[in-house]
Amino acid sequence: MSGTVPPMSSLWFESALTPAGWRRHVRLTLADGRIATVAPDAAPQPGDERHAIALPGLGNVHSHSFQRAMAGLTERSGAARDDFWTWRQRMYAFLDRLDPDDVEAIAEQTFMEMIEAGFTRVGEFHYLHHAPDGRPYANIAALAERIAAAAETTGIALTLLPVFYAHGDFGGRPPVAGQRRFITDLSSFGRLVEGCRRAIAGLDGAVLGTAPHSLRAVVPDELAALQAAYPDGPFHIHVSEQTKEVDDCLAWSGQRPVAWLMDHAGVDQRWCLIHATHADASERAAIAARQAVVGLCPMTEASLGDGIFDAVDFQQRGGRWGIGSDSDILISAAEELRLQEYAQRLSRRGRNLLTGAPDRSTGRSLFETALAGGAQALGQSAVGLMAGAPADLFTLDATHPALVGRTGDELLDSWMFAARSTPVDTVWRAGRKQVSAGRHVRREAIETRFCRTMKKLLA
Amino acid sequence: MSGTVPPMSSLWFESALTPAGWRRHVRLTLADGRIATVAPDAAPQPGDERHAIALPGLGNVHSHSFQRAMAGLTERSGAARDDFWTWRQRMYAFLDRLDPDDVEAIAEQTFMEMIEAGFTRVGEFHYLHHAPDGRPYANIAALAERIAAAAETTGIALTLLPVFYAHGDFGGRPPVAGQRRFITDLSSFGRLVEGCRRAIAGLDGAVLGTAPHSLRAVVPDELAALQAAYPDGPFHIHVSEQTKEVDDCLAWSGQRPVAWLMDHAGVDQRWCLIHATHADASERAAIAARQAVVGLCPMTEASLGDGIFDAVDFQQRGGRWGIGSDSDILISAAEELRLQEYAQRLSRRGRNLLTGAPDRSTGRSLFETALAGGAQALGQSAVGLMAGAPADLFTLDATHPALVGRTGDELLDSWMFAARSTPVDTVWRAGRKQVSAGRHVRREAIETRFCRTMKKLLA
Repeated sequence: MSGTVPPMSSLWFESALTPAGWRRHVRLTLADGRIATVAPDAAPQPGDERHAIALPGLGNVHSHSFQRAMAGLTERSGAARDDFWTWRQRMYAFLDRLDPDDVEAIAEQTFMEMIEAGFTRVGEFHYLHHAPDGRPYANIAALAERIAAAAETTGIALTLLPVFYAHGDFGGRPPVAGQRRFITDLSSFGRLVEGCRRAIAGLDGAVLGTAPHSLRAVVPDELAALQAAYPDGPFHIHVSEQTKEVDDCLAWSGQRPVAWLMDHAGVDQRWCLIHATHADASERAAIAARQAVVGLCPMTEASLGDGIFDAVDFQQRGGRWGIGSDSDILISAAEELRLQEYAQRLSRRGRNLLTGAPDRSTGRSLFETALAGGAQALGQSAVGLMAGAPADLFTLDATHPALVGRTGDELLDSWMFAARSTPVDTVWRAGRKQVSAGRHVRREAIETRFCRTMKKLLA
Repeated sequence: MSGTVPPMSSLWFESALTPAGWRRHVRLTLADGRIATVAPDAAPQPGDERHAIALPGLGNVHSHSFQRAMAGLTERSGAARDDFWTWRQRMYAFLDRLDPDDVEAIAEQTFMEMIEAGFTRVGEFHYLHHAPDGRPYANIAALAERIAAAAETTGIALTLLPVFYAHGDFGGRPPVAGQRRFITDLSSFGRLVEGCRRAIAGLDGAVLGTAPHSLRAVVPDELAALQAAYPDGPFHIHVSEQTKEVDDCLAWSGQRPVAWLMDHAGVDQRWCLIHATHADASERAAIAARQAVVGLCPMTEASLGDGIFDAVDFQQRGGRWGIGSDSDILISAAEELRLQEYAQRLSRRGRNLLTGAPDRSTGRSLFETALAGGAQALGQSAVGLMAGAPADLFTLDATHPALVGRTGDELLDSWMFAARSTPVDTVWRAGRKQVSAGRHVRREAIETRFCRTMKKLLA
C-alpha cells in the first residue's frame, strides 16, 4: 500500500467540521486506518501533526476513469447537431485505442487528481471489460484489476462497480460495434464479478457493487436476475440522462425510465440513480421516498448538454444526492459543487438555493449533502470526522488568499466559490498521508507515466 | 512601471495563434511595448526567449475589483427568497468598510489574479467614488487613482470606466443610503472624469471610457448629456441583468431596457451592454445590427442568479460579445469561457454550441470571439499576435498533463475544458514579463498586502 504512514498517529486542527458542526482545537487519534478518538477543545500534544482546517474526505459517486484521456478532444462540432449521442460515437472510437497499460495509467492520473481535490473514495462505474476486438481477455477481470491497481497506487478508496451491459437499446436490441468491449451476459458477468472480488481483496476499504448500465443495456429479466444474484452492496444505474432516453423508454414501456424502475425494480437505499436529469416531479418524489441517492455529475451534465436536474425540488422533498465526476473532463470537487449550485441559480434565477438548515451556509449544505449521499451510494457505512469512521480527511490551506480571514462555513463557501487555485493541502486516506502541500506523494511518477501514455495515444 | 523588461526583445514559440490561425515556429520581435515583426516558420535566433505555445492576451470587459474582497461571504441565505437584490444589499453594507488603501490592495490582488489568468487588459467599471459617509474626497478621483495605481503595480492594461450614478431607480428616484458612495451629478462627474484622465496619464496603454451605471441610475437627459460630453472611447452600461429590471423599465417607459436604448440612445460600436441577459430576440437582433458588444459575465451571472443570455441566437445574428469577471468572485479566463459554453449547453441540451467557422474548435471560437469583443469594448484598436499590436500575450505550459500531446485548437479546448490547474505560464504586457512560471513577478508583496487587508476587514 502506498503513502506515508506518519510515525505518530495523532493530528490536531485549529478547526474541524465534525458531524456536530465546526469545532475548535480538535485532536484526532488514528488507529488501523480509522479515527479512534475525536476531542474538541483539546490542547495539542507533543508529536501531534498540526494543521489549520480539517474536512472529511468526499465520495465521488460516478467515474469512468478512461474518459479522462479524451478530455478536451471532443470540443469540436462534427455534425449538424452535436450532442450527447455524437459525443458517444467519439467516445466509442477513442476507447478502441486503449490497452490494459493505458487503462491503468489513465486511472492512476485520474484517481490522483481526485484525491488531490479532496475526493477520498471513487465509485468507478467500470464497463470497459474486453480487448479492442471485443473478445474477453484470458482473465475477464483483467481491466478491473488495472482499476484496482490504480486505486492501490494512488491510495484512493475504491467502490468498484462492474457494469452489466448486454444490449444496445431498449427492448434488448443487439449492441453496436462500438459497444463490443462492454458486452457480457449473465454468465460471463458472474465470472467478471468474481474476478473483481479477487482484484479488490487486498485493497483496504474497497467495496464491490453492481451496475446494470442503463435500461438500454439490460432487459427486465436480467435486471431482476442481477438484483437476486447480488443482493448486497451498492447498485448503480444510469437513468434519464437525455430526453431521447425518456422518449425511447416511453415508446418501449409506456413509462418514463425512473417511473419504470420504481414499478419494476426494488429501488431502495442501496440504489444510486446516476443523472436522473429528466426525472419529473412524481419521479423525484418517488426517488426521495425510496431514499435512493441521485448521482449528479454537474460538469459532465453541462459538458454533454444533458440538462439541469431540479435539485431544489428534490431536496425539498428530502431527496439525497451525491456528486460524480463521470466523464472526468475536469477533476474538482469544489467546481462540481459550485456548478451544482450555479446550474440551479441559472435556471431558477435566485441565490443560495441548495441550502438546508438555516444555521448553515450554502457551501456547507452542498458539502454535507454530497458527503452523506456519497457515503450511502458508495457503501461506506461510517463517514465524517468521528470515532469509528475511516481516517479519510483533508485540510485547507488557511493562508490561501481566497480563505484568509474566513472562519467556519465561510471557509467552505470561499473554497467552493472563490478560490481559483485549490487550497486542498493535505489528504489522508485510511490514515495514510497521500497528499502533502497539494501534491500527491507519487505525483511525479504518476504524471510521467500518464504523459507518456497520452503522447502515445495522440501521436 | 513594474515588471521585468527582458534584455532581449525577441521571442520564439513552437506554435502561436495568430490572426491567420495557428502558425509553427513563430518568431516575434518587440519594440516600445508593441509587436514589431511576426515571422512564422522561422528558426530561433541566439538571444530569443523560447516557449512552446503563445496566445494573445484577453480583455476582461467588466470588473468591480473591490467585490473580490467579499468573494465567498454572501453564500448564505438571509431571506425567504435570496437573489440579486438581497445580494446587492450585502454588497452595499460591505463596501462601507473600505478605505482608499483597502481599495488599492484589493484591486492589486484582483488585477494580479487576472493577469496570471491570461487577461492582459481590464475594464474597471468604477463606481466607488466617495468616502463611506458619501462625501467626496478632497480629490474626487482619489479612489480612481487607487485603481490606476493597482494597474501600474500589476502591469495590467487599464480601461478605466468612471461610472455616472445619479439616481436609485427608474424615473430619477432618489438614491438609497447604500448608494451614497457612488453618487454624482453631471457637474461633479465632469470633475471626476478629469481626475481619471490625470490618474491614467502615465499608464502605458490606458484608455478612458464613460459608464452610465444603468437605466436605473440615469435619466434620459443625463444619458444624452453624457454621450454629448464624452463622444469618444468606450461607453458601457449595465442592462437587463434581472427580470425585475425589465419589468420596471416596461412600467416606466413601456419598453424593455435594450429596446429603450435602441430607440433613445445612439447605441453603436463604442457601446458595451453589460449582461443583456434578458434581451429578447428582437433586442438581440438590434444589438447585433448596431455592432455593439455584449459584455457577458458567466460566473457572476450564475452566482447572482441572473439567468442565461441566449448567446447562440445572438452569435447566429452576427452579435459580438466579450467576457467580464464582474463581481470577481473567482478569476479565471478559462472558467468564464467554459461556463459561457456550458450554460448554453445546459439550456439547449446540445454540445459545441458557440462554434463559429467549421475549421475551428469550440474553444478556439470562444477565445477568438472574446478576444475581438474584448478589444472592441475596451477601446484597444489592434489586438492579436500581429505587427503593430501591443505585445500583450501569454504562453501555455505544454507539459501540463491536461495539454500533453495536444496541438492547435485542442490546446485551447484542453486548457478551457479539461485543466484543473492553470497552464498559463508566462505573460507579457506591453512587452514586459509580468508573470513567469504562473506567478506574477510581484505576487508575494501583493498577496501579503491583500491578506493583511482581508484580516483587517474580516476581524
